[in-house]
Amino acid sequence: MIEDKNQQRTPLSELGEFKLIEHLTKHLDIKLKSTVKGIGDDAAVIDIKEKNIVVTTDLLVENVHFDLSYMPIKHLGYKAIVVNLSDVYAMNAQATQVTVSIAVSNRFPLEALEELYAGIETAAKVYNVDVVGGDTTSSTTGLIISVTAIGEVEQNDVVYRNGAKPNDLLVVSGDLGAAYMGLQVLEREKEVFKVNPNNQPDLDAYTYIIERQLKPEARKDIVSLLKDLEVKPTSMIDISDGLSSEIIHLCTQSNVGCDLYENKIPLDPQVISTCEEFKIDSTTIALNGGEDYELLMTVPQEDFPKIKANPNLSIIGFITEESRGMHLVTRGESRIPIIAKGWNALND
Amino acid sequence: MIEDKNQQRTPLSELGEFKLIEHLTKHLDIKLKSTVKGIGDDAAVIDIKEKNIVVTTDLLVENVHFDLSYMPIKHLGYKAIVVNLSDVYAMNAQATQVTVSIAVSNRFPLEALEELYAGIETAAKVYNVDVVGGDTTSSTTGLIISVTAIGEVEQNDVVYRNGAKPNDLLVVSGDLGAAYMGLQVLEREKEVFKVNPNNQPDLDAYTYIIERQLKPEARKDIVSLLKDLEVKPTSMIDISDGLSSEIIHLCTQSNVGCDLYENKIPLDPQVISTCEEFKIDSTTIALNGGEDYELLMTVPQEDFPKIKANPNLSIIGFITEESRGMHLVTRGESRIPIIAKGWNALND
Repeated sequence: MIEDKNQQRTPLSELGEFKLIEHLTKHLDIKLKSTVKGIGDDAAVIDIKEKNIVVTTDLLVENVHFDLSYMPIKHLGYKAIVVNLSDVYAMNAQATQVTVSIAVSNRFPLEALEELYAGIETAAKVYNVDVVGGDTTSSTTGLIISVTAIGEVEQNDVVYRNGAKPNDLLVVSGDLGAAYMGLQVLEREKEVFKVNPNNQPDLDAYTYIIERQLKPEARKDIVSLLKDLEVKPTSMIDISDGLSSEIIHLCTQSNVGCDLYENKIPLDPQVISTCEEFKIDSTTIALNGGEDYELLMTVPQEDFPKIKANPNLSIIGFITEESRGMHLVTRGESRIPIIAKGWNALND
Repeated sequence: MIEDKNQQRTPLSELGEFKLIEHLTKHLDIKLKSTVKGIGDDAAVIDIKEKNIVVTTDLLVENVHFDLSYMPIKHLGYKAIVVNLSDVYAMNAQATQVTVSIAVSNRFPLEALEELYAGIETAAKVYNVDVVGGDTTSSTTGLIISVTAIGEVEQNDVVYRNGAKPNDLLVVSGDLGAAYMGLQVLEREKEVFKVNPNNQPDLDAYTYIIERQLKPEARKDIVSLLKDLEVKPTSMIDISDGLSSEIIHLCTQSNVGCDLYENKIPLDPQVISTCEEFKIDSTTIALNGGEDYELLMTVPQEDFPKIKANPNLSIIGFITEESRGMHLVTRGESRIPIIAKGWNALND
């Protein structure tokens, strides 16, 4: 979404590839001591002393992962960074550097890419990471963004997906389902707009859920919080692909089962009211909606006093022996097997 | 290019995203001690002790960077890794890990991606790197491959683009222009094939140049060679975007000029004969053809005895004061300013 149709439009071919990346990245300054060399050589150079590094990568494709008809392109740049940092935090690591590659078709003027990079730059500032590399090239159709994020962590602090133990508490950060419901509202307004382009939507009742969709945040604060609380989770995973699919990943890799309590799942009031409006079951959305950049973790029982009163963390169940399976315990106390219905980009 | 049209074709939607990445990566084993955790968590974990790490990333887009009508998809997987490793070696570092993300449209069956990963796996074996992460997703049109490569290097061994000094020797590895001429031959055969699909091309006279296009190698050996020779270049750069554009990068970033001798540019006999056949000037091709995954470096004069007889290295000129500018000294001894005509993906 490039907001003002009358603004300046500079064709990309005027600059060429080298000048383009130089132009887009010239405002990015190096903030971290560990960044020895950022953009401008064949590769970036990073000095991380005796820590371990973590690396994760994601590819965002136009009309698969985002729709520019309602996604402001600056927000897209911000979100592209955030989705990768979330995976770094899920390792209990601090994000330090990112590389960004974009492929773009001729229909995008330079000004659109400047907006995209403004969002990237903002995210880099907010999360205190350096943008250390990238590639810009052309695409035959839409916009593609590939981000690789690097983080550092003390060797003994890394948290994997596979360490959950029976009796551990199942804990999730934040609340669930908001990003998905935000998307439903945006899709509905897009349809209304097609019929009546002069309609001014009143989105006041949906501000939180729309922001969760368009400008999600990654839980850098949870990594710091856990350190402050002196809690090291036995396992942790980013749940942006959906709570149910990620619980399954975590339990399968840890060779455990779990009981997840429906009435413990944290929901924002806007999610509850919007689910009622759309006549959708809020538990289904919380389990399968996806795009909640929250962290699911397992914590030893003895750490219960440290986390019980924390508003950022909800205890939603506990880990069982593998043979007990993975179940949702409903409000009516029936036990339903958890099945993955998370977001799948490869479905027809 | 999927060679046998009658082979099995499994639609990707049958597997879904998680199973797909699992299926494609299950043969990839971890080889390096520094790879603490590869694929299978939110991020990979790497332990590099007290060295520096280098990071580089590249995006390959169908019909911009490759044409599957003559590029076997296995070779494409191989090449996608090689082009990134070349940037790691250009930092005088050893490549250690890569992440691979692919976006793919429904027209690709599973078997095509298996071929792609077979090429990736072969390259990982040949270059002794671990594949530690990745993402698979769908694309609305063609195939997109994003690779990030990580390498390690002793802090004092890193070589940047900006360290060239007046009087340094200008040195290039291998020979130049072959990949571009290989592409010309392939493009010609594609046109012939369109007219007469039964024509069996005789490509014996072009084996070297076609291989340089379809299955290029990165110069890992040069990093080891320089170590053995006890030569540390003052600057180094990968020249796959074209010799002339990269000489300009190196000189500009080092604030120096250079004299490049036309008669010293290393050319394979197949390049010379194919240039004659196509009536193209071989120097122009060597300067601007691109896709030669060779290293350009500057070496102090006093190291001349160490490199002079090495068949892998050609001295093609020397560095001058910045005020002298950057020139090609022709066979006829005229001095022509070097201008960048390297490959540019963003041109119309």
